[in-house]
Amino acid sequence: MATKKYNFYAGPAILPYEVLKKAQDELLDFNGIGLSVMEISHRSKDFDAVIKGAEEKIRKILGVPDNYYVLFLQGGASLQFGMIPMNLLKSKDQQADYVHTGEWAKKAIKEAKLFGKVNIVASSEDKNFSYIPKNIKFSENAVYVHITSNETIGGIQFQTYPDSGNVPLVCDMSSDIFSRKINVSKFGLIYAGAQKNIGPSGVTLVIIRKDLVENSADGLTTMLSYKTHVKEPSLYNTPPCFGIYIIKLVMDWIEGLGGLSAIEARNEEKAKILYDFIDNSSFYKSVVEKESRSKMNVVWRLNNEALEEKFIKEATAAGMIGLKGHRSVGGCRASLYNAMDVEGVKALVEFMKKFEMANK
Amino acid sequence: MATKKYNFYAGPAILPYEVLKKAQDELLDFNGIGLSVMEISHRSKDFDAVIKGAEEKIRKILGVPDNYYVLFLQGGASLQFGMIPMNLLKSKDQQADYVHTGEWAKKAIKEAKLFGKVNIVASSEDKNFSYIPKNIKFSENAVYVHITSNETIGGIQFQTYPDSGNVPLVCDMSSDIFSRKINVSKFGLIYAGAQKNIGPSGVTLVIIRKDLVENSADGLTTMLSYKTHVKEPSLYNTPPCFGIYIIKLVMDWIEGLGGLSAIEARNEEKAKILYDFIDNSSFYKSVVEKESRSKMNVVWRLNNEALEEKFIKEATAAGMIGLKGHRSVGGCRASLYNAMDVEGVKALVEFMKKFEMANK
Repeated sequence: MATKKYNFYAGPAILPYEVLKKAQDELLDFNGIGLSVMEISHRSKDFDAVIKGAEEKIRKILGVPDNYYVLFLQGGASLQFGMIPMNLLKSKDQQADYVHTGEWAKKAIKEAKLFGKVNIVASSEDKNFSYIPKNIKFSENAVYVHITSNETIGGIQFQTYPDSGNVPLVCDMSSDIFSRKINVSKFGLIYAGAQKNIGPSGVTLVIIRKDLVENSADGLTTMLSYKTHVKEPSLYNTPPCFGIYIIKLVMDWIEGLGGLSAIEARNEEKAKILYDFIDNSSFYKSVVEKESRSKMNVVWRLNNEALEEKFIKEATAAGMIGLKGHRSVGGCRASLYNAMDVEGVKALVEFMKKFEMANK
Repeated sequence: MATKKYNFYAGPAILPYEVLKKAQDELLDFNGIGLSVMEISHRSKDFDAVIKGAEEKIRKILGVPDNYYVLFLQGGASLQFGMIPMNLLKSKDQQADYVHTGEWAKKAIKEAKLFGKVNIVASSEDKNFSYIPKNIKFSENAVYVHITSNETIGGIQFQTYPDSGNVPLVCDMSSDIFSRKINVSKFGLIYAGAQKNIGPSGVTLVIIRKDLVENSADGLTTMLSYKTHVKEPSLYNTPPCFGIYIIKLVMDWIEGLGGLSAIEARNEEKAKILYDFIDNSSFYKSVVEKESRSKMNVVWRLNNEALEEKFIKEATAAGMIGLKGHRSVGGCRASLYNAMDVEGVKALVEFMKKFEMANK
């Protein structure tokens, strides 16, 4: 490759170089056992250390209390959209509150409607999902409240989480988990597809309070019941072993950087550089309410939208990969997940300056 | 590593050296794009070539007719145990025929009972699942017939498949797909967890006749409906990209070996070497009916069962990994999937001879 590549894909997304390098080094000989981590039994001693190690690091880094299970499942957040109402609602009469913030919330809402009554307690649809609703009033009888922490397409993010009182708060954190400190005990259930800040696609992380599992519905398809995956901890059937192994390496990497405090500071610095540049520009513009701006997915437009295709094309040629906005909204998007460093954002801003100069 | 390792794990199982080596070589720089295949969008041009290439090779190698879809899903065969009756049975009154051949068939039967009436049309439970039932009479009103091609725990395998007439034959081929030639048009649905002959764990291959999808149930959770995965071919949500990439490499490897004719001949040779040795021994014994013996998972006992633990321990020390029988049945098991070569089986027999000499 001639040009250094900067990976701004929204997901599957950039992974830390150190993680990929270690995976490469030991791909043919894991732990000196003479076999690849991909070709050993999920019940072997060596893999047991991987899956237990990954769980342990997640608990430590995120501060997961003892009354929560940590599970590695399959099917992505999309399968959780169904599994959550299936497990937590016990009849079609039961209610759940959903906050509608964009494409991902919409998909979660659609599945929940198959299993119970869904109250849309707040929505930012009126302004094309360009903000996170505030002062949300939850229903009195909801079994749980569902929010989407970060919307990758609209580029909006909860800066603080709402207080749902005694009603369990269920949160899709697919695109911002491990990007900042959180208080896990404020949530009933946190779930996340791995392919942004955790690892490769194909693993779903679920962190669920123990009482929610105990009180979950019976009679479900075995693989769709949280009880199954709690009873034989993520090993009821063969788990996605290689993905879990990469997650373990990513957790080691986060720890090495100084944990979530350091990660959060770095993510704030990165987002500030890009948003400040856009705000001070008369060539580019942000379309997202300031207080709702995502630190993971920065979306913007060119004032002259006709130039956007050219912008993406020249950016790609300059090594800036994945800057095209989601096909449903267009425009530009830079995903600044954990593994993107400050230097990468600075390089992007430099390119944006040059493009502006040449096309003003 | 001091000793060469021979990988006899039942799954996740041995992968071809050439596949692992290629994956290692390009882990940091796929296709010369300067990024890992793990960190690129599933909708990027480069990944599109991977998933389409994998499907194309599967179609070619297996001879999949045009009236079948080839899907890459998640959740393993265990999720298919539920998805199949959920999609194919439209009410609890509808019936399906199941052949009960052991642990895996049992799990499939359990899930089907949640969705309809299950007829166990044949079973080898009377002899501890040591044979494949013959001359099976199917029901008149079954929507489909379900069989398990190979039972990894009992070590039995259909040598020829039953004729289910006009009733779609549904087959769990997790542990022997791509091990021999098959006539896909005899089946309505073939499914397989990847982690034996196809790739790493975390991908499920589903080959389904188009009319079965069109006639499948409505109103299901989006991720559990075959219609979803057909409409946006295996890309409704983010697929397990790295696993699909490895599958593509495994297909290249099978093609390079000469396709399924060559693979089948090699698998027959390997199984013959081991079964012949066991049959001619008065120290080891097969517990499986001759005509039902699996060519993928060879299970055996020592006449003196008290020596089995010692056998496994010394085998492991000699580099023979994964020979312990499944925890539910004990004894010994050597899995001889495609990537195990003839030399590996000969090495195992040599070790067995030595152990016999020393412990007779």
